[in-house]
Amino acid sequence: MEHAKNEQAKGTWVTYRPEITVLDCTIRDGGLINDHQFDDGFVKAVYDACVAAGIDYMEMGYKNSKRLFAPDQYGNWKHCSEDDLRRIVGDNPTNLKLTAMADAEKSDYHTDILPKSESVLDVIRVATYIHQMPTALDMVKDAHDKGYEVTLNLMAVTSVQEGALAEAVEQVAASPASALYVVDSFGTLYSETVRDLTLGYLKALEGTGKDVGMHMHNNQQLAYANTIEGLILGANRLDATINGMGRGAGNCPLELLIGFLKNPKFRLRPVVECIQDHVLPLLNGDKMEWGYMIPYMITGMLNQHPRPAMKLRGSDNPDAFVQFYDEMFEEE
Amino acid sequence: MEHAKNEQAKGTWVTYRPEITVLDCTIRDGGLINDHQFDDGFVKAVYDACVAAGIDYMEMGYKNSKRLFAPDQYGNWKHCSEDDLRRIVGDNPTNLKLTAMADAEKSDYHTDILPKSESVLDVIRVATYIHQMPTALDMVKDAHDKGYEVTLNLMAVTSVQEGALAEAVEQVAASPASALYVVDSFGTLYSETVRDLTLGYLKALEGTGKDVGMHMHNNQQLAYANTIEGLILGANRLDATINGMGRGAGNCPLELLIGFLKNPKFRLRPVVECIQDHVLPLLNGDKMEWGYMIPYMITGMLNQHPRPAMKLRGSDNPDAFVQFYDEMFEEE
Repeated sequence: MEHAKNEQAKGTWVTYRPEITVLDCTIRDGGLINDHQFDDGFVKAVYDACVAAGIDYMEMGYKNSKRLFAPDQYGNWKHCSEDDLRRIVGDNPTNLKLTAMADAEKSDYHTDILPKSESVLDVIRVATYIHQMPTALDMVKDAHDKGYEVTLNLMAVTSVQEGALAEAVEQVAASPASALYVVDSFGTLYSETVRDLTLGYLKALEGTGKDVGMHMHNNQQLAYANTIEGLILGANRLDATINGMGRGAGNCPLELLIGFLKNPKFRLRPVVECIQDHVLPLLNGDKMEWGYMIPYMITGMLNQHPRPAMKLRGSDNPDAFVQFYDEMFEEE
Repeated sequence: MEHAKNEQAKGTWVTYRPEITVLDCTIRDGGLINDHQFDDGFVKAVYDACVAAGIDYMEMGYKNSKRLFAPDQYGNWKHCSEDDLRRIVGDNPTNLKLTAMADAEKSDYHTDILPKSESVLDVIRVATYIHQMPTALDMVKDAHDKGYEVTLNLMAVTSVQEGALAEAVEQVAASPASALYVVDSFGTLYSETVRDLTLGYLKALEGTGKDVGMHMHNNQQLAYANTIEGLILGANRLDATINGMGRGAGNCPLELLIGFLKNPKFRLRPVVECIQDHVLPLLNGDKMEWGYMIPYMITGMLNQHPRPAMKLRGSDNPDAFVQFYDEMFEEE
């Protein structure tokens, strides 16, 4: 059999690249299903699993505004107050670094993000749409000046023109952010486009010491495949969630990623244990729904936000797939 | 952004290759969940959906032995008698070609496979493990002599040494089979190995006019991604099932594949309709279970038959994932 090697591939399939790090965003992305109303026991279980599995980063939730997301409607992990964080992790005496995401124009970052010396968080991840880049860059600077490592998730790039995207990436290259993520917000990317975006980001960031990251969604059952595609090409920061938990079709499953990565520091069993004891009760108890399903496939194919599909699934007729198909394709 | 093109890629992402054909094996592979005990209404619904969707081939089931698979224990689609077939499709006055699979050493092919002139079937697909190749090649010749198009699924190649595999592929090249499938029986393949196998088969069959096909399983959520990988490299025959129905973790979902292929002859809506009206009732009614799940992930990672995972799911404690993990990895 012929062994064709991808010329741009970094590393081989037997060795591993020690610089590859994995971030678990189960609570942050999964919280978009239930307005971040997880009980402490679940958050602690995910934290313990991440520590035991040798995961590099765990995202505890958002640092978003209490004005926009009222505490009586949203759970603790929409705001990640220092008290709430420490109730779960104490002073976090582990190798697991903790992150929180802050959305451009949805975060009172000047006041809500404390100086690093007063926080158990290690990393602030700024999420932004391209038209919010000036705000996002100010957020990057603010968090960096406060002493955090900062990374940037540029969302919904599949709806951005190439020229504008190239300009935004240049701005990130000149910023103090340490990583830029390829974000497939709508779960619409195929391997070819993952390739173009990843190689494009890598080239634009060449020589800056910054990493490229992958944050994929599973609308077309490609979250894991696209994450692998990115890492083979040189992306070093990989987002995943336990059992793929996440809004709509969900995310790249952490357990698959750990099974793939060869670094012996990662351990699969604690993740399987967390799924058995803590995730299955949520899935089987009909408390939360996520995963591949026709309505999410359709929004992914159409490069659209999963919002209408989520609305269908929350309606009285959640299985009306054909009507949904007709409505969505008619709008095109 | 850089547009790196895969040098070996056939065609582009905007055009389509008219020689690509899609085979629906919902009844045949899905029947491995329920001993092929589908009622006529379901089989007819899949048939109607395939016709309306412009699918090229539909696999009606197996042509396997009634001695080995007793008709009082197995449904009609384990044997595909001419009467049963015609009750669903009549004389099949459509463009949809009909196939049946015959397993090496499990089929009384000399007697059970009728001359083509007496059958509504168009294609016989022979499935074989490598140690059964002599029988399989006799089956290929038998069906070819009877007037059928014949293809060969060489199963479980991930457990076969390269030298033996190369020899088997040479035998296929010299046979009257019109296609050889890359078969990931255990759902264990990553893109790199899909690539090696597909390119290896293509090279070995070069100049013979034979096609390479893809038959993938979803244990690691890669069935669709690997199918695309194969087709980009030049595989022309693609297996898929509606909503991914199939034993264990299931197969490449037909709806995703149709969404990807650009050939305007394919239509997605009839497949969505079949899922809504006929597949969801089976899934939601707990009558049949398939899809990604930790036990199937584990057998896939270990390159093993899903049998032990299916046994777990049929037991009194189907969610005992950690115990299953310990047992499977201890056996290694």
